[in-house]
Amino acid sequence: MKKIDESTKKALIEAAIDARANSYSPYSGYAVGAAVLADDGAIYAGCNVENAAYPLGMCAEANAIGSMAMAGGRQIVAAVVSGPNQDLCAPCGGCRQNLREFAGADDIEIYLCDSDGGVLMETSIFTLLPNSFGPDVVNAVRHGKREK
Amino acid sequence: MKKIDESTKKALIEAAIDARANSYSPYSGYAVGAAVLADDGAIYAGCNVENAAYPLGMCAEANAIGSMAMAGGRQIVAAVVSGPNQDLCAPCGGCRQNLREFAGADDIEIYLCDSDGGVLMETSIFTLLPNSFGPDVVNAVRHGKREK
Amino acid sequence: MKKIDESTKKALIEAAIDARANSYSPYSGYAVGAAVLADDGAIYAGCNVENAAYPLGMCAEANAIGSMAMAGGRQIVAAVVSGPNQDLCAPCGGCRQNLREFAGADDIEIYLCDSDGGVLMETSIFTLLPNSFGPDVVNAVRHGKREK
Amino acid sequence: MKKIDESTKKALIEAAIDARANSYSPYSGYAVGAAVLADDGAIYAGCNVENAAYPLGMCAEANAIGSMAMAGGRQIVAAVVSGPNQDLCAPCGGCRQNLREFAGADDIEIYLCDSDGGVLMETSIFTLLPNSFGPDVVNAVRHGKREK
Repeated sequence: MKKIDESTKKALIEAAIDARANSYSPYSGYAVGAAVLADDGAIYAGCNVENAAYPLGMCAEANAIGSMAMAGGRQIVAAVVSGPNQDLCAPCGGCRQNLREFAGADDIEIYLCDSDGGVLMETSIFTLLPNSFGPDVVNAVRHGKREK
Repeated sequence: MKKIDESTKKALIEAAIDARANSYSPYSGYAVGAAVLADDGAIYAGCNVENAAYPLGMCAEANAIGSMAMAGGRQIVAAVVSGPNQDLCAPCGGCRQNLREFAGADDIEIYLCDSDGGVLMETSIFTLLPNSFGPDVVNAVRHGKREK
Repeated sequence: MKKIDESTKKALIEAAIDARANSYSPYSGYAVGAAVLADDGAIYAGCNVENAAYPLGMCAEANAIGSMAMAGGRQIVAAVVSGPNQDLCAPCGGCRQNLREFAGADDIEIYLCDSDGGVLMETSIFTLLPNSFGPDVVNAVRHGKREK
Repeated sequence: MKKIDESTKKALIEAAIDARANSYSPYSGYAVGAAVLADDGAIYAGCNVENAAYPLGMCAEANAIGSMAMAGGRQIVAAVVSGPNQDLCAPCGGCRQNLREFAGADDIEIYLCDSDGGVLMETSIFTLLPNSFGPDVVNAVRHGKREK
C-alpha cells in the first residue's frame, strides 16, 4: 500500500464532507459521507440513502463505490468516511466487505474523519477486515474445483 | 402521473443501456442497467455491483437512486431498467421499495427494456408494488403516535 | 392457490403475533412478527432483527423464511404479517422478493393483520409483487443460454 | 471473553455442520452453516438462504442470529461457521456486523471450520471487526446528544 499524497488526501476528505451534506437519513438522523479514490486518480463520493424498510437502505461507502463501478473503476486505492459529529464513524461490516471487493491484492488506505474533516483514525481495509471473505473463496466453488 | 415526452424517454433508455455496459456482475453474469429521472429533469444512471458475499451486492436501480440522492434529488418521475437479453428484466422487490421511497405522493412511470432498448413493458411503481410499506408507516410509530 | 382452512389460519396468525413479542427493533421501535406455512404443514415464525448499521437488519418475514429453509422447507403456502398497531403493515419489497423465491409456480396466500390479529387485508404474493423478478430470469443467463 | 468448554464447542460445531446440509444456495453453490451460542447456553443454527435477486439473500450467520433473537436471545457468547470445503470460510463483513450487534461489551469466541468440523481458525468478533460501528455510535445521534 503506497500512501496518497497530502493534496489528494485533502481532496478526498473534502469530497466526503461535501457528500455528507446530501445525506438522506430521515430515520436515523445519522448523516454520513464517503469518498473513494480509484487507481486512475478519480474520486467518487457518496452519502447514505436510507429507506423506510431499514434493510434496504444504502451506506455512504456503498454509494461511493456504486458510482466508481458505474464509471468503470474496479480498484480502490484510498477511502475516507466522515461522520456527523466529533466521534469516530467507522465503516460498518457491510461497507468493509464492499471496499474489500475492490481492494484486489493491494490494501486500501482508509481515513476516518470527524464532521470537520479532522482525521480521527488512519487505517486500512485489511486492518479493518482481517481474514476476509472475498472473491477467491466463492469463485473456487463456483468454478467447480473444490466443493465437498 | 404525467407521462414523460418521447425525447426524455429515449434519453432515459439510452442512459440505462449505457450504464449496463459498466455492470460489475462476475458472480451472476447478469448485467443490468437502470436510469431514473428526477423531478428537476436530471437523469441518473446505475449498473449492478455484485459482491462475493452476495447479500452485499447492489442492484442497478439502487445505484442510480444513490447517485440521485447524492446530487440532492428526492423525487423520481420515471425510471428505466434494461436487462442483458430479450427477456423481461423487472426490478426485484428491493428495488421497487427503493424506488417507492422517492415516489412521494405521485406514481413513477417505469419502462422495462430489453438489451437493445426495446420497451417490453410500460408500468408504474404503484402497479409493481401495490399497498406498499413506506415512510408514513414507520414514521407513525417512530414519532410515538400509535405504538400498541 | 388453494385456501388454507380456518384453524390453520388462526394458528398462523397466532404464531406471527407471538413472534412480534420477541422483535429486536431498538432503532425503529417498529416491532413486526411474521409466520409462514410450508407445504408440509409446518409453521415457521420470525420477528424483525435490527442492526445499528440499518441496511444489515433483517425483516420478520425473512427471519421466518430463514427458519423454514433451515428446516428443509422450500415451498410456502401461506404467510401472515402482524404490525405493531392498528395500521396496515404490508411486507416491504425485499420481503415480497424473499417470499416469491419460495412460491414456486403457485401463489402464496397472505394475510396482513393488526397487532391483535385482526385481518386488515387478504392478498397474495403474485398480487403484491406482479411481474416479479425470479429464479427463472437469472438462471437463464447463468446457464449460458441467452446472454447478449 | 471466557472460553467455552470442549463439549459445548463440539455441539456448536456439529450444529453448524448439520445446518449446512439445509443450505439453499442454488446461485453460488456455496453452502454455509453457522451456529451461535447464547448466554443462556442455548444453541441456534442457520444456513445461507439465497435469492435470485442476490442482495436479498441471507447469510448463514444472520439466519442463526435471527433464530436466537426470535427466541429472545440478546447476547452471543460463541459462534461457529462451517464452509463447504477445506478452505477457510470466514464470515463476510455483514455477518461480522450482525454478530457484533449481539456482542454487548464482551467479545465473542469464533471458530471457523472446514466441512468436516476441523477448526481452521480460532478468533473473536473484536478481532475480526476491530474499531466497529455499533449501537453506541448511532444511538448517540438518535438520542439527540451530539449531532453537529
